[in-house]
Amino acid sequence: MKNKKYIIAGAGLGGSLLGVLLAKKGFDVEIFESRPDMRRHDIAAGRSINLALSDRGIQALKKAGLSEAINKIMMPMAGRLIHSVDGQKQNQPYSGKKGRVINSISRGGLNSILMTEAEKYDNLEIHFESKIIDIDWDKKEFTYWSDDADSAKKEDFDIIFGADGAGSEIRTNYQRGGLRMFNYSQEFLEHGYKELEIPSNMDGSYKIETDVLHIWPRGQYMMIALPNKDGSFTCTLFMPYHGEQGFDNLKTKDQVSNFFNEKFPDAVPFMPTLLDDFFENPTAPLATVKCYPWVKGGDSALLGDAAHAVVPFYGQGMNASFEDVGVLDDLINQDPSLNWEEIFDKYQKLRKVNADAIAELAIDNYKEMRSHVADPTFQIKRHIEMALESRYSDFNSKYSLVTFEHEVPYSVAKSLGERQDEYLMKICKDVKDWTSLDLDDIYNDLIKLRK
Amino acid sequence: MKNKKYIIAGAGLGGSLLGVLLAKKGFDVEIFESRPDMRRHDIAAGRSINLALSDRGIQALKKAGLSEAINKIMMPMAGRLIHSVDGQKQNQPYSGKKGRVINSISRGGLNSILMTEAEKYDNLEIHFESKIIDIDWDKKEFTYWSDDADSAKKEDFDIIFGADGAGSEIRTNYQRGGLRMFNYSQEFLEHGYKELEIPSNMDGSYKIETDVLHIWPRGQYMMIALPNKDGSFTCTLFMPYHGEQGFDNLKTKDQVSNFFNEKFPDAVPFMPTLLDDFFENPTAPLATVKCYPWVKGGDSALLGDAAHAVVPFYGQGMNASFEDVGVLDDLINQDPSLNWEEIFDKYQKLRKVNADAIAELAIDNYKEMRSHVADPTFQIKRHIEMALESRYSDFNSKYSLVTFEHEVPYSVAKSLGERQDEYLMKICKDVKDWTSLDLDDIYNDLIKLRK
Repeated sequence: MKNKKYIIAGAGLGGSLLGVLLAKKGFDVEIFESRPDMRRHDIAAGRSINLALSDRGIQALKKAGLSEAINKIMMPMAGRLIHSVDGQKQNQPYSGKKGRVINSISRGGLNSILMTEAEKYDNLEIHFESKIIDIDWDKKEFTYWSDDADSAKKEDFDIIFGADGAGSEIRTNYQRGGLRMFNYSQEFLEHGYKELEIPSNMDGSYKIETDVLHIWPRGQYMMIALPNKDGSFTCTLFMPYHGEQGFDNLKTKDQVSNFFNEKFPDAVPFMPTLLDDFFENPTAPLATVKCYPWVKGGDSALLGDAAHAVVPFYGQGMNASFEDVGVLDDLINQDPSLNWEEIFDKYQKLRKVNADAIAELAIDNYKEMRSHVADPTFQIKRHIEMALESRYSDFNSKYSLVTFEHEVPYSVAKSLGERQDEYLMKICKDVKDWTSLDLDDIYNDLIKLRK
Repeated sequence: MKNKKYIIAGAGLGGSLLGVLLAKKGFDVEIFESRPDMRRHDIAAGRSINLALSDRGIQALKKAGLSEAINKIMMPMAGRLIHSVDGQKQNQPYSGKKGRVINSISRGGLNSILMTEAEKYDNLEIHFESKIIDIDWDKKEFTYWSDDADSAKKEDFDIIFGADGAGSEIRTNYQRGGLRMFNYSQEFLEHGYKELEIPSNMDGSYKIETDVLHIWPRGQYMMIALPNKDGSFTCTLFMPYHGEQGFDNLKTKDQVSNFFNEKFPDAVPFMPTLLDDFFENPTAPLATVKCYPWVKGGDSALLGDAAHAVVPFYGQGMNASFEDVGVLDDLINQDPSLNWEEIFDKYQKLRKVNADAIAELAIDNYKEMRSHVADPTFQIKRHIEMALESRYSDFNSKYSLVTFEHEVPYSVAKSLGERQDEYLMKICKDVKDWTSLDLDDIYNDLIKLRK
């Protein structure tokens, strides 16, 4: 019996992990990646350099037996460090429970580990600089363009996974006729982002605290910084494109210099290449992509950003993508007959509501990060949440539900978290001394919000 | 001085009308239409045969001096005629004010008049079977494919209008890189539609009432019929694709026959070709398309379905498209310097909120047509609205605001109309005899809802 041929478009984070898990089952897998092999070329351009890996992502990596290898390249961050304009710093832990951290990790480093793991399997092959450009669903044949060939080539397939990111060619095929009645939306924020850098000291040591995610919240805009293993930090400035406080108004070196000196005075001394970085690095847009269906019968399925690109403010884009792969893997394992139409239909029904939830949470969290973290009521709320999490093992704040409770689906984390937030913000309004509040009473009210 | 070259993609209803109004100003206009000339070929396939023309559309046609020519091919409809399963009929006028009608009109007939009018101008040319396939915005040059040529041709342009419908190639160009940060969504209803026919009698006379829009509301689905000038009616069955009461369950002639005999018994005797029509005509999907921006600087603008395809349940798709053209024409007239970037920016800001409003109204109205029209409370509400419209010259129901009050933007009609509906449905609940209500009191409450 000829084996089925599983094609994955995209050797990024989700595609590579899926490749590993399918190859592990003995399936014949070929991955087509339009870019060159990042292990041999420097192709960071335009994509964020480091990401926050948290529990949901780690769960899926464990399935591939990779959590130890990955441990070595992560930098734990136990909370946010808020930088005020006046240079004051305030630590806001992510959780009141011990040991809960999110992890700064290099996109390239993680992707390289996944690719190298994938290529250990004889039944898996990655074709780099090879882009799927057309699919004939009736003939079960796709066309791809390979940079080392003179012309497009055709190859047959049984199943094609679209793990090819926010600009997915597979999803575009669905939209342009591959699927009837394909619902699709792409929606841009009016804000863009630009990456900047805090380099290491001469001796390779770090210039600022490494075990936190730094935030300079400034209302309409913000800068953040995540540590890298090499002693540097990747900074990202998020701000509107247009308007008074927008990229539009940062066109000359003087403007940029004045702006940073005025708004981020404590960071400027650590950013010696600020002006060069600012004008060399692109200003990139931020979009949310939603679609449905995610699958074409038993022939094809989308995952990760291809199915649900989100804005980066909850640090869950990669984690959601890995969770997709984990759920697919579970569903495959639960169906020894491999009825792909059923597997895919269950997959999209399980995942769609959760992808929608994290997409909305991510948009909401931008406001929290750039503005609320500096608000006194919000700070009191965080104090109470920390105290509750510390005292009651079964209480989790919205942030913890989303980030640390991988058994709670995003959609449930969102709805319960929002009910908790509404209650707590009411409690915290006009409170001067939060330690005067009765935690037991609050806890008893909060557990009633569970359904 | 070389004249500017205005290109319109699409010689449909909106594109042809825009062509007439631009040509009238002396502008050099070329229209590229991918289909053959409908005046010489029969190409109705897949698109609805008749439409409801109402005040907003008529206003724009007046600008082209075409209202008289159009008058001759319209069939006025003064209200809905509701057909119950038991054969009872109930007339629901559209307005309590005299002379207010919507008009059934043949899409092909109207489009032919517009094209013929457009071609009267020496400075306007329509290229049929010619499809714009690519645009080079830097060179201001587009590529088109013409059915009578061996290869694609290039031509330069100053401004390109996208009037090429729900599947617009111009909008697709925006989406695929022509415009940065282009917001886009396409969303399908779970219901589709199929066109059927009530032919004329042998002598050319009508089999059923001609001055109404017939509705057979059946809860989850409905059939409607609009009169044609030739004595026939075009019927449309709207229903879910899937589920118990869905197209899925109408696969055999027996199933269709039983379904119609049971659900539309009074219509069946008038539909001699029902079974042939049912299996020959396609089941077509219903989608809402939204996007933004609608324009690319001063180089290009979308209008009509290309910018905002809506579902057909408010009978406003064509009217909204004509209103776009009317607004564009006004803005052009108001700016003798022809600063297109400013004209287009004003145009999209004026129209986007209104297109969004009619898109949502149209989705809401499907429920009203297939279900509420048969509901007693709704019927009492309509009686009161008719009485109010008849007594108070300045009162208009939501339907009237949308359909007959062209000076009220859709967005205002929607918000005021919804406030009125909420109030009136409350008043009408549990009322047995609506004539016992005090109209003056109701009127006085209603005018307070205006802002």
